[in-house]
Amino acid sequence: MTSYPTISFLSDYGTVDEFVGVVHSVIRQISPPTVVIDVTHEIPAHDVRAGGLALARSAQYLAPGVVLAVVDPGVGTERRAIAIEVGDGESVLIGPDNGLLAPAVAMVGGATRAFELTNPEYQLAAPGPTFAGRDVFAPAAAHLCAGVPVEELGDEVDPNGLMPAMIPITRFEDGALVAEVLWTDRFGNIQLNVDPDEVAAWGDRIGLRFDGGSRTGIRVETYAEIKTGEIGLVVDSYGLLSVAVDRSSAAEELGLGTGDEVKLLDLSDDPSAPSGIATPVTLREKP
Amino acid sequence: MTSYPTISFLSDYGTVDEFVGVVHSVIRQISPPTVVIDVTHEIPAHDVRAGGLALARSAQYLAPGVVLAVVDPGVGTERRAIAIEVGDGESVLIGPDNGLLAPAVAMVGGATRAFELTNPEYQLAAPGPTFAGRDVFAPAAAHLCAGVPVEELGDEVDPNGLMPAMIPITRFEDGALVAEVLWTDRFGNIQLNVDPDEVAAWGDRIGLRFDGGSRTGIRVETYAEIKTGEIGLVVDSYGLLSVAVDRSSAAEELGLGTGDEVKLLDLSDDPSAPSGIATPVTLREKP
Amino acid sequence: MTSYPTISFLSDYGTVDEFVGVVHSVIRQISPPTVVIDVTHEIPAHDVRAGGLALARSAQYLAPGVVLAVVDPGVGTERRAIAIEVGDGESVLIGPDNGLLAPAVAMVGGATRAFELTNPEYQLAAPGPTFAGRDVFAPAAAHLCAGVPVEELGDEVDPNGLMPAMIPITRFEDGALVAEVLWTDRFGNIQLNVDPDEVAAWGDRIGLRFDGGSRTGIRVETYAEIKTGEIGLVVDSYGLLSVAVDRSSAAEELGLGTGDEVKLLDLSDDPSAPSGIATPVTLREKP
Repeated sequence: MTSYPTISFLSDYGTVDEFVGVVHSVIRQISPPTVVIDVTHEIPAHDVRAGGLALARSAQYLAPGVVLAVVDPGVGTERRAIAIEVGDGESVLIGPDNGLLAPAVAMVGGATRAFELTNPEYQLAAPGPTFAGRDVFAPAAAHLCAGVPVEELGDEVDPNGLMPAMIPITRFEDGALVAEVLWTDRFGNIQLNVDPDEVAAWGDRIGLRFDGGSRTGIRVETYAEIKTGEIGLVVDSYGLLSVAVDRSSAAEELGLGTGDEVKLLDLSDDPSAPSGIATPVTLREKP
Repeated sequence: MTSYPTISFLSDYGTVDEFVGVVHSVIRQISPPTVVIDVTHEIPAHDVRAGGLALARSAQYLAPGVVLAVVDPGVGTERRAIAIEVGDGESVLIGPDNGLLAPAVAMVGGATRAFELTNPEYQLAAPGPTFAGRDVFAPAAAHLCAGVPVEELGDEVDPNGLMPAMIPITRFEDGALVAEVLWTDRFGNIQLNVDPDEVAAWGDRIGLRFDGGSRTGIRVETYAEIKTGEIGLVVDSYGLLSVAVDRSSAAEELGLGTGDEVKLLDLSDDPSAPSGIATPVTLREKP
Repeated sequence: MTSYPTISFLSDYGTVDEFVGVVHSVIRQISPPTVVIDVTHEIPAHDVRAGGLALARSAQYLAPGVVLAVVDPGVGTERRAIAIEVGDGESVLIGPDNGLLAPAVAMVGGATRAFELTNPEYQLAAPGPTFAGRDVFAPAAAHLCAGVPVEELGDEVDPNGLMPAMIPITRFEDGALVAEVLWTDRFGNIQLNVDPDEVAAWGDRIGLRFDGGSRTGIRVETYAEIKTGEIGLVVDSYGLLSVAVDRSSAAEELGLGTGDEVKLLDLSDDPSAPSGIATPVTLREKP
């Protein structure tokens, strides 16, 4: 029997309504000593992919224990409520089986075991079926912390049958690396799905082509090295290639948002390429 | 002497300024082991009714202990600062006597005793009279948690003399159930002041008439059952009738907000009624 | 060896991304019993002055312990990461050496000692240099709480060499007290950099001249005393003169924001001055 000291809690509940406070209150009563850390509750409503990516970015930094994640557009339907054990019990992730947990589970080495939350003994009776965070997921998380073994929460299920996540991968096409915006953060930095190793052999200047524009990115170590008017390419704090401008929003300046496509071109053999000058272009196949 | 382990804290302070953090800090110094749970701080500024309803929705889920609630447009005036004991001391609600606490007090069975916060020994000296959350309410809450008996906080007052809350009730008029929007949540679901029992004998299709539109709501169990283009009627997680659309905002689609009137009509004897088709109408007395 | 029980945490990280949750998680793992109080994370991005003022307003109310403050547009550059001891070790402020900490340090009596965070033993290895809150500042704060002496964090530096803050002070010019808006809060109250003592000998009615308008402020004790259509002057909860209207936003009504200039005129010898009537004027030298 393991009892976990910490719940890391992520959702799309926002903080305007009382949803997050009610979930904390439910946990507090089932397992008083448990510390609840709010990862974020501002995942866009119903955006399972954004929630999964935020959880994956956080995963390696979260305290061992229980992860409670709720972005759940299918609440109340036949989508399963699940608990996924990772690291042979070091942590357990709890949430809907809709792909939300999958990227984080993959980040930490995959599932050891999985259980469907079918045991009503560890759920709250509810006046309606629409607030599973309060009635199903939070009680399960809190009971785990209070010492209930994960296998008590419900029927064991095959981890291979869990809903996978769709994470976009890059591809080479006509000499360009076709990438996608994974995330734009509060500061307007644009995280791409590009491992710096993919462009390690390229020069310091990389062409960026996207719907509505064309820019040259300069590789730098820190945001502050980016000169006024320039576009920087930084290895961000998660180890991915990120497009940035200094003290301003690259996302706004380039008109790019989550899910947008960006083509990267090695300009090291093309010293005449423009730098930092916006050139609206029509995207087309290169000859 | 009771000492309480938990403070549940709701306010209209927002989280942009440091108000909430300062209140937590004041509590931490007076009663270090107390856990403070933030219910929400995004009640619209000065909106006592919205704060009271959020507190009432949360009340049955909050941990026994102290509830600290501050929506206080009359701060510094002769409006009283009060502590209301409920459940023979199981919990104490602290805040301004302006109706904010009344719905939650009613939800949990009414006041046992009430006290005005007149004892300066349990308040902070303040440079100005405008931040009672920091200077009056939080110290009172924290001293209660540290073991100060509630009767030490000030003069006992008659619970019957406390400011009541104005919660709208439904009425029947010309064959329609006249209801009001109590709350629209982050997901755009529209909570009405309608107990499902009031329409239990009605059919599965209920007419909705409101300023600027007319729709037919289909009764369903979960949001996901609502088909594209349809309006659903769900018993929400608080046990009230709620208007919803799937994965989108009903409040936006219908142009409805808190306080708006909605008339409900039993369509079970009118199978020709339109379903899910927006029909702008002029509201008038039915013939 | 001192170990601190509380970290007070302020930043410009916002709460939409997972930054704040990740910092909490890092602290939780290094020093599990430490309580982290979020002062605010909605300092405008990169706004060092706004962060410094919020910290100064909070300083006297924060629990003794560690203050972790991150508004850090120069992250990853040669700007120093520092720990400033105050009160002979009662508290330690940790953050970038860019003026952010200076107003709070001044508020609590100045620095006792200061250290640059150069010891990699108390930092996390990071994939990129852009998230110093997670990789440098939070670990330093948490290790302090776990009992590491502040002098272990890195090289001692001269407190006199720390970056100072620029706080605007008032001046008299042509019979007017020239002030500046320090802060507009959630409720639209406008805090000026004016100590009430500066206008103690003035009358109850004070002229306000600003870009785009001219109004008369009435001195009152509480917001609720301000009559409809009137502009009130209140000593706010931080002891500074503040411009307010009742249950509405003075900042919106007067079109004033942080950093704007406001000229104050003593109207006690000018009983004919208009009260509460908006008079657009061209600002010019008084004859």
